[in-house]
This record gives sequence, C-alpha cells and structure tokens, in this order.
Amino acid sequence: MSRRSLPVAELFEAARNGDRGALARLLSLVERGGPDAREVSRITYPMSGSGYTVGLTGAPGAGKSTLTSALIGHLRQQQEEVAVLAIDPSSPFTGGAILGDRVRMQDHATDPGVFIRSMATRGHLGGLSLATPEAARLLDAVGRHWILVETVGVGQVEVEIAGKADTTVVVVNPGWGDSVQANKAGLMEIADVFVINKADRKGVEDTRRDLEQMLELSDLAHEAWRPPIIPVVATDKRGVPELWDTVVAHRAFIEGNGELVRRREFRLREELREIVARRLEQRARDLTTGERWAQLQADVLHRTIDPWAAADEMLGTIGA
Amino acid sequence: MSRRSLPVAELFEAARNGDRGALARLLSLVERGGPDAREVSRITYPMSGSGYTVGLTGAPGAGKSTLTSALIGHLRQQQEEVAVLAIDPSSPFTGGAILGDRVRMQDHATDPGVFIRSMATRGHLGGLSLATPEAARLLDAVGRHWILVETVGVGQVEVEIAGKADTTVVVVNPGWGDSVQANKAGLMEIADVFVINKADRKGVEDTRRDLEQMLELSDLAHEAWRPPIIPVVATDKRGVPELWDTVVAHRAFIEGNGELVRRREFRLREELREIVARRLEQRARDLTTGERWAQLQADVLHRTIDPWAAADEMLGTIGA
Repeated sequence: MSRRSLPVAELFEAARNGDRGALARLLSLVERGGPDAREVSRITYPMSGSGYTVGLTGAPGAGKSTLTSALIGHLRQQQEEVAVLAIDPSSPFTGGAILGDRVRMQDHATDPGVFIRSMATRGHLGGLSLATPEAARLLDAVGRHWILVETVGVGQVEVEIAGKADTTVVVVNPGWGDSVQANKAGLMEIADVFVINKADRKGVEDTRRDLEQMLELSDLAHEAWRPPIIPVVATDKRGVPELWDTVVAHRAFIEGNGELVRRREFRLREELREIVARRLEQRARDLTTGERWAQLQADVLHRTIDPWAAADEMLGTIGA
Repeated sequence: MSRRSLPVAELFEAARNGDRGALARLLSLVERGGPDAREVSRITYPMSGSGYTVGLTGAPGAGKSTLTSALIGHLRQQQEEVAVLAIDPSSPFTGGAILGDRVRMQDHATDPGVFIRSMATRGHLGGLSLATPEAARLLDAVGRHWILVETVGVGQVEVEIAGKADTTVVVVNPGWGDSVQANKAGLMEIADVFVINKADRKGVEDTRRDLEQMLELSDLAHEAWRPPIIPVVATDKRGVPELWDTVVAHRAFIEGNGELVRRREFRLREELREIVARRLEQRARDLTTGERWAQLQADVLHRTIDPWAAADEMLGTIGA
C-alpha cells in the first residue's frame, strides 16, 4: 500500500515515530478539510495539550522569519525540538521564497529536531482560522512541544490567529511610526512580549517610548503582566536568548496564575462556536440551490429586494 | 432634533443633498451593523448600481495612498467627483496617520468633490467583507459615481475585498521579488491592471518581466483582457493619466462584453450567501447558550470529545 492511501491512524503512528513524510501528509489532510481532517482531529485531539504555541507576528519586512530562524537555532542549542507553522505569505517558509532567505533557512532543513511547514487552506471549511489550531494540535500530539506560529500582522484573520497563541510576540522595528502601525493593525492588544528587531539601527529608544506610551493608554500596563520590550538583532542573534527567556518567563507566569488554562478554554469555546457557524454555513450553501433561492436571487439582482431582506426571507422558510 | 437622532431616511436625503456630515453618520451606521444598517441597505440598495468601484491594492509601503491621492487629483482636474474607502490599517486615510502623509492628503480635505472615509467594523455582523459593499452602495446611492477602494494586499479578508471591485488595480514596486510576493498573497488572480509604482527607481523592467512571466503561467495572459502593466511615479503624478485611461478602458471593455454584469451578479450572489451564513452564525451564537451546550463544552475542555464531533452533536439536536 502506498503512503498516499495509508489510513489516517497508520499515518499518525508513523508520524509519532518520527516519519516526517507522514506528518507532512497529515498536515495536508488538515489543510484540505473534509472527512480525513475530521479523522485527524478525532485521533489527535485527546492526545494534545502538552505542547506550547508561541506566536510571532508583525508587519511584512519586520524580520519575523529571520527571528524565527534565530529562535530555532537557540532552541536547538538547548536540545529542544521545535515545529514552525508559517501563516505568512511574505515568509520564506511559505515556498516561492526569495533566494537569500531560503539559503538562510537551509541551516535547519536537514535537522530532524526541526519541522517547518507553511499553512495554506486547500478547501478547509473554516479557512486558516480553523485549520491552524488543528495543525498545531497535530504537531503537539506527535510530540512537538514548542510550536512557533509565524503570521503576518496585517489582515483580520491573520491578526486573530496571531492572538490565539499561548504567548504572542509582536515584532516591530526601530523608527518613528512603526509602533503606530502595529497599534492600528490591532497588534497592541494581543502582545505578551514586544521585540524591537533590527535594534542595531537608530530609533530604538523612540520606539520603546512609543510602545510604553501606547501600553499606558491601553491599560495593558496595569495588568499583572506588563509586556516586556526586548531589543533584538535577529541577523546576528543578539537579544535572542533574552527573548526566549522572556517567553519562558511568560509561560511560567500564565501557568502559575491559571491564565493559561483560562486562555485555552476561551480559545476552545471560540473554536467550537466557529465550527458550529461554519457547519451552518455549509448547510446554507446546501440550502442555496433550490427554486425559492433562485427566485430570491433574481429579485436581488433586479434590485426589488435588498440582500439582507432576501436572506431573512430565505431563513424564514427554513425556520432559522 | 439633533442629527444624532435623525431617522435614517432623513439622513439619507441630507446626504444626497451634499451634507457630508450626514453621509459620515450613515457610514458609521453601516459599520456598526444592526437595524440601522439594515435600514440604510433597504433605502440605498434600489438606488445603487450606477457607481463604479475601482480597487487599489498592494503590499504595505507600495505607495497605494500616494497613488490614490494622485488619482483623486487627476479626477478632480476632469471635474469628476470621487469617494474613497480605505480598508487599510497602513493607510494615512485611516486616522493616526504619519504626519507627512496627512499633509499630503490635506490637498483634498476641503474639496467638496472629494469624500474620503476609512472603514472599520464596529460590530457589523459580517465584518469588513460585508460592510464594505454596503458602504460602497451607500456612496453610489448618494451620487458618487467613482468609488476608489484602497485595501492592503495582505490577509485573507482584505485580498477578497480587493478582488470585489469592478476594476482592480494591483500596485507593486520595482525590484526583484516584489511581484513574487504579490503572487503569493493572491494578488495575481484579482488584477485587472498592474501598476509599477516608484518607477523612477531601478528594476522596473525586471518587475515587468516577472509580471509578464507570471501572467503567462497563470493563463490570465490568454483571456480577452490581458492586464496591462503601467509604470507610475505617484509622487509627481507621472503615469497617472495613463493609469486612469487604462482603468476607463477596462471599464469600457467589461461593460461592452457583458463581463461587468456577470461580475456584479456573481458578487451579489456571493454576498447573499455570506449574509445567510452570517445570520445562521448569529443563530448559532443564540443556540450556544443552553445547558446541552455547556455540557458539550465541558466535554471538549476535558478532551473526551473533539470540537468537530461536539459541533455535529449540537447541530444534530436542532436538526441542522
């Protein structure tokens, strides 16, 4: 039997025993959604929960991939295994990479302690926002205990995904305005740790002051955990050990005060609600095929009824 | 009676008569969603359809706002009125702008022929992807016949919105790799026109060749309309008249061959379907409050059932 047709349970056993090809194949099933993805979920869900996700996000060009690469190096020095999910069209991890970045990443390409995967949605019902936590749980269930999730810090779905990590690191650059952009993109609210990357450039203190000021305004400053601000030069790894120590400290802090459990419960509730919504959406698609629907569509196209009123009428006919 | 409490119909009449404050207020109602937004939709929908939307999208830093500003200037010279919706956290139109950009925009701030609005979702059920077409129809119904929609070309929702304009302009910069990024972000499929902005820098021909090559690979090259590639220097308006002529030519082309009608019908069908889905989602939220739901949640949290199976069970109880 070829790997292609192996049942999900066998693929999972192989992946747990270190077969990277099997793991890659399972991740493709998750991306694709459908019955096979459901089967992956059924098997992995009870076995997950010990892994820890660290989100890395920031504007394109902030140096997230270089930072991710530096963190991988740091974790490997400490004999930690690590998996990376890249949800970032500008990431060199996501294929079609620019040569320079690709070369940089090849440091880790042959290391069995590192597993890097870019995420796309090849038909998954819930898009990236539901496929990503499933993929993270799969990595968790096969024994990857540190899972880095790199997302671009622009866009509604992407910022939401970034905020769903156990610890979220927001990456900005020195210079006036960058932290303002981060704030506008909604990154201020999701940050547990700030990194000022490219800290060998001028403007680090300005950026730190901007961030401090925005923290003050946002009330985050008055929470028990005030997001620390770590200057880093990812290209030569300066500040990377301090960053990792801060992530570990944040983990210990939220593990200690019960916040981690609360966050994860909140996320699971949200995910469950979103799945219900997506299933209902699917039901809506099934519904939107009949004759009554065709008539309502025609009415909307002829502008005799507006789309919201048409939707109401349709939902009325099915009692929803 | 203060403007705040004016009925929607009166606000709409005022907006049609040129009251910009009333128009701004209506847009806020749309952003907020709910019954008032529904009322706006009910009134504006039958009156819309003569406006034309032009989407401008590209990576942050590509110069979309400068280009938008230059296009406004060009349209005003031709006595055309124009409205701008900015769906872009990095746009200077969206408040919290960086000073330089703000100053630049003030050219148009006092011109009654120009209306600029940044869009946010203050609770709208369907997020930006449903609020944006409603806002565009409102602008259309009050008599704005050119509606520019500026979106950041990163992120699932944002790229989708960018693709929903009548004509979509994708902005890239000279230099190796930029067009590759655009392709990865999904911008290649939605482009009707390409702009190479900052064309006074080197690498214009490389970028043009990259774009041509990607067009060949994507089959878009073999469609009846092959997306033209226009070099522009938005800061000094070089190429802006050519760009606008191309947009107008594209409009004439899709008006002539029936493609505009097909596009709009397709978009309306998609919108209708999405509204049905959002309403069902709301129904799901109402459902996810009872005792059975609490029990299923607890089971998920204790990992005795996975989220998809729990959703199935819940939906089974309501026959959906």
